Amino acid sequence: MLDEASTSSLKVTTGPLPHSRKVFVSATRPDVRVAMREIALTDPSEPPVKVYDTSGPYTDLDAVIDLTKGLPQLRAQWIRERGDVEEVEARAVRPEDNGLKEGQSSTLPQFDLSGRRPLRAKAGKRPTQMAYARAGIITPEMEYVAARENLAKVNGGAHPHHQAMGLGAAIPAEITPEFVRQEVARGRAIIPNNINHPETEPMAIGRNFLVKINANIGNSAVTSGVAEEVDKLVWATRWGADTVMDLSTGKNIHTIREWIMRNSPVPIGTVPLYQALEKVNGVAEDLTWEIFRDTVIEQAEQGVDYMTVHAGVRLPFVPLTANRVTGIVSRGGSIMAKWCLAHHKESFLYEHFEELCEILAQYDVAFSLGDGLRPGSIADANDAAQFAELETLGQLTEIAWKYDCQVMIEGPGHVPLHLIRENVEKQLKVCHEAPFYTLGPLVTDISPGYDHISSAIGAAMIGWFGTAMLCYVTPKEHLGLPDRDDVKTGVISYKIAAHAADLAKGHPAARIRDDALSRARFSFRWRDQFALSLDPETAERFHDETLPAEGAKVAHFCSMCGPKFCSMKISQELKLEAGDIARAQADNLASSGMAEMAQKFRDGGGLIYTPAPEVAPPPPAAAE
Amino acid sequence: MLDEASTSSLKVTTGPLPHSRKVFVSATRPDVRVAMREIALTDPSEPPVKVYDTSGPYTDLDAVIDLTKGLPQLRAQWIRERGDVEEVEARAVRPEDNGLKEGQSSTLPQFDLSGRRPLRAKAGKRPTQMAYARAGIITPEMEYVAARENLAKVNGGAHPHHQAMGLGAAIPAEITPEFVRQEVARGRAIIPNNINHPETEPMAIGRNFLVKINANIGNSAVTSGVAEEVDKLVWATRWGADTVMDLSTGKNIHTIREWIMRNSPVPIGTVPLYQALEKVNGVAEDLTWEIFRDTVIEQAEQGVDYMTVHAGVRLPFVPLTANRVTGIVSRGGSIMAKWCLAHHKESFLYEHFEELCEILAQYDVAFSLGDGLRPGSIADANDAAQFAELETLGQLTEIAWKYDCQVMIEGPGHVPLHLIRENVEKQLKVCHEAPFYTLGPLVTDISPGYDHISSAIGAAMIGWFGTAMLCYVTPKEHLGLPDRDDVKTGVISYKIAAHAADLAKGHPAARIRDDALSRARFSFRWRDQFALSLDPETAERFHDETLPAEGAKVAHFCSMCGPKFCSMKISQELKLEAGDIARAQADNLASSGMAEMAQKFRDGGGLIYTPAPEVAPPPPAAAE
Repeated sequence: MLDEASTSSLKVTTGPLPHSRKVFVSATRPDVRVAMREIALTDPSEPPVKVYDTSGPYTDLDAVIDLTKGLPQLRAQWIRERGDVEEVEARAVRPEDNGLKEGQSSTLPQFDLSGRRPLRAKAGKRPTQMAYARAGIITPEMEYVAARENLAKVNGGAHPHHQAMGLGAAIPAEITPEFVRQEVARGRAIIPNNINHPETEPMAIGRNFLVKINANIGNSAVTSGVAEEVDKLVWATRWGADTVMDLSTGKNIHTIREWIMRNSPVPIGTVPLYQALEKVNGVAEDLTWEIFRDTVIEQAEQGVDYMTVHAGVRLPFVPLTANRVTGIVSRGGSIMAKWCLAHHKESFLYEHFEELCEILAQYDVAFSLGDGLRPGSIADANDAAQFAELETLGQLTEIAWKYDCQVMIEGPGHVPLHLIRENVEKQLKVCHEAPFYTLGPLVTDISPGYDHISSAIGAAMIGWFGTAMLCYVTPKEHLGLPDRDDVKTGVISYKIAAHAADLAKGHPAARIRDDALSRARFSFRWRDQFALSLDPETAERFHDETLPAEGAKVAHFCSMCGPKFCSMKISQELKLEAGDIARAQADNLASSGMAEMAQKFRDGGGLIYTPAPEVAPPPPAAAE
Repeated sequence: MLDEASTSSLKVTTGPLPHSRKVFVSATRPDVRVAMREIALTDPSEPPVKVYDTSGPYTDLDAVIDLTKGLPQLRAQWIRERGDVEEVEARAVRPEDNGLKEGQSSTLPQFDLSGRRPLRAKAGKRPTQMAYARAGIITPEMEYVAARENLAKVNGGAHPHHQAMGLGAAIPAEITPEFVRQEVARGRAIIPNNINHPETEPMAIGRNFLVKINANIGNSAVTSGVAEEVDKLVWATRWGADTVMDLSTGKNIHTIREWIMRNSPVPIGTVPLYQALEKVNGVAEDLTWEIFRDTVIEQAEQGVDYMTVHAGVRLPFVPLTANRVTGIVSRGGSIMAKWCLAHHKESFLYEHFEELCEILAQYDVAFSLGDGLRPGSIADANDAAQFAELETLGQLTEIAWKYDCQVMIEGPGHVPLHLIRENVEKQLKVCHEAPFYTLGPLVTDISPGYDHISSAIGAAMIGWFGTAMLCYVTPKEHLGLPDRDDVKTGVISYKIAAHAADLAKGHPAARIRDDALSRARFSFRWRDQFALSLDPETAERFHDETLPAEGAKVAHFCSMCGPKFCSMKISQELKLEAGDIARAQADNLASSGMAEMAQKFRDGGGLIYTPAPEVAPPPPAAAE
């Protein structure tokens, strides 16, 4: 836990993953250097594999990490050189921002913001990636995204799966900056990048890019502290979280968020309604547009990159949830429904939506239009309430786009397998292909403790069908707050889902890592198998639980079958012989020739117990 | 580990799952009493939920468990009263059956078989469920299956999901014994029930029944012992394994199998080729039809219910694997490929297939036609080798059916999302709807340590598309041998996949448990949520990690959001009000009336902090 009086307990995991190092790929613009993770392999004939890297400077041995200073401001120059933003006087932090009473002050250490003032659009300007894209401008952020997504190019060429089914997605063999610009201009992709969060490494969310995943962190009124949340942020990005949502609802959330923002290499999303509700002591009816607006500005000045806004929970839709099994399960949705009913008025978020667009455009905060009426059970999936809200979100998307605001759309939730596709098809249609961002969905309700699995099933499918970003679910879903291990399990589960979707969609770089791992497997390069795994540490640990000896890591068999039954070993021996036979067949050998072939095979050493060929010893594990 | 000299270390987990008890449902025939698990709920208005129960007598408080005596012979009378089987002199156990040399004898305790002789068909008879079904006979086994599958009926009526997509499956609202007979006669379902395994509780594998799962256990040359395997057997069925395959490849496999058979309430499958290979000291070329046949008879006399036979790995198909990334990854497939190439002869399994049918029919051992050429990587999915073998399996199915043999077909493996459906469609077509039994499939290769997740994704989909049984994959897949925890994780992951498939297919009982759990969730009946979970123990433990106090189990919020942000709590309060509003809208209240409505809502206690209503205390946890 964070010592209240100091920052000494603030610690995160740094250093590269095993057998990996940080490399940088150049883009057209010389100051755009794109970070990637390069995985070294033990076989000299196997090129190293470059993979997408969300972990930021924390895995760079050359980087100096000082959490009290925050990350380098990678984008600062890019943001300012466009000339459309200006420094403004920061909104003064008030006690209620941290859930404190008048006169109280936070005992937590404050991030040192001296010399730093928030940026905002100059009058009449809209410094959003969408505005630039529509004006035909390719920003450094777009260049970064293009180089980052171009994994096929840096790994030696496109390698999609045969017969891949994009189902409407159209990912080009080479991702050019111009392609990124077009997708952003069209609203089919977003680059969430608040001008006040220059620490981010730009990334895109859109169905024609790699499928992304989000990890939720955040304290609650019941549990969790500051050091823990910053640690979870870095930990989640270490394993592959593309964005992180800070869903804090307890005290000190302004202060905690500042620490998160300044130390996050990935876009941060929030639900401003949560903090607004804290400011009115949890009484939903007491919320006002003014309090909400003030909270949005507070968070926009801190650098929040995208905000969930439940503006689709309209008064007339609330009765549609009356006969549901699980009512309204979105926190924001239930708060807004309560407000609407208490006042018997239309939602202030809906009524003030255009004003909100004006504000978000000033900072390039992207909308994540919340699905406040998403189903919370299999029984409630794809019902009238859910789809009424979705259609409203489509209308709001059109409005937001008028203001050059970037938009994505949140989706369910709990959906049985056979109803998943309808969600995507409807969303793509009514929301004009704005990126879809779904929570799971869980494909059954009976898996508490394993909801990361039941939701990864739904996530893989919905990702394939066209969802651009998948919000993770941890094993603690429905039961408790995720700890560090749960965060990692959730992230890895969702990397699996996202990657499975990329494979099926035919992403040009999709199969590179799979094939490299499979070749390593077939060649008994255990170290390379571990290194190419999504979680090299767990893979190696599981192997060592059964066969801990160092020799077992170069053995030509494993514990599952032992040497006699190793299909890979037998099959490897067969490989050349099969080639011989194929030729023999082509020569139309008569059956009399077959006995000869058989003899040849025997002479060639057809025994299962042939000595294993020499294998180069693996390099020492990288320091962590 | 099992003490070599005694059985004292042989222990398994017994007693019911939390809040559950064993109940018996009657069928038409009075001696057919079908075991189910009844989950008691704390809300008197919620009926208890009866669920399918694979755990056998081990979870029955009234049962006396003595592993040295084995389970009661539930089916003994049914088998004998048909008059078509007779006792035969048991094949003498030979040292090589246990991997021992001539003159050596096993130091392991032997299961006491005194007074027990194996059964075999009388001359000219075929005591298979398929033969009976074709003859129009409804066996007690079919009655048992019908009652067991009829979960809608015992839970108060059909409850399929709306718009379910059976994709060709047609599950009737009521499963009658006659329906079971028809499906078995048609070859679309099997009831694997060796006449020498009377301890089984009959179950069906077929696309018009609940999707089943299999768990693999077994020792290897490298590790694992007897007590461990019996414990894993009982443990796997406790959590829901419908069948268990004993894939032992080390020493003492005859002895270990005897202990497994006699104590297993579920069908046991094996791959006889593994034991046959042990008998020729691991030299594939030395295998002969005679050694294989003898092994099949040895295992059939012990009671093995289904056997994997890789008769589709034909000589001409082996060259088709030459350019694969991972060659042949099936152990049986690689052994047979090696044999074929060494002798340059057609597979002895293929050549002697009809003779094999005659043998299996004598014991009602079901075929599980192995996919020896299944893909072991995403790169190799759906290739020529795989589908050439599949077509052969279709031809072999027709032959086996001529002999009244029950047949299922094994399937892959590693398949990307977009190629899964083709597997099922092709299998259903070329194998004439014989039940499909797939391993996973894994939807990516890069998830070592988490392959239970990447394969559960594929399993859920392939189950929905028409696969009848899903073979589990544990977290140790590709890395090591599963321990007890891995077995449980694998089973639960696959229960999720199978249940998700049942929901999508519209099984008439599919949603009963989901809805009961969701109602419990919405009513804050935490104990009922745990009880209805696939793994009640983990669900409760995860909850208690954050909120350990007993009071938290009846609290109207949880640790995720705390009391202010609990959407369920807010939404629950809204529910009645929404009803009011729906009525108000129906009355076409003018906008002037709205303020009144709002006032009414406020008067009714519209605060979030309303006191939680009294909840009946939960009953004490059931003894375990």
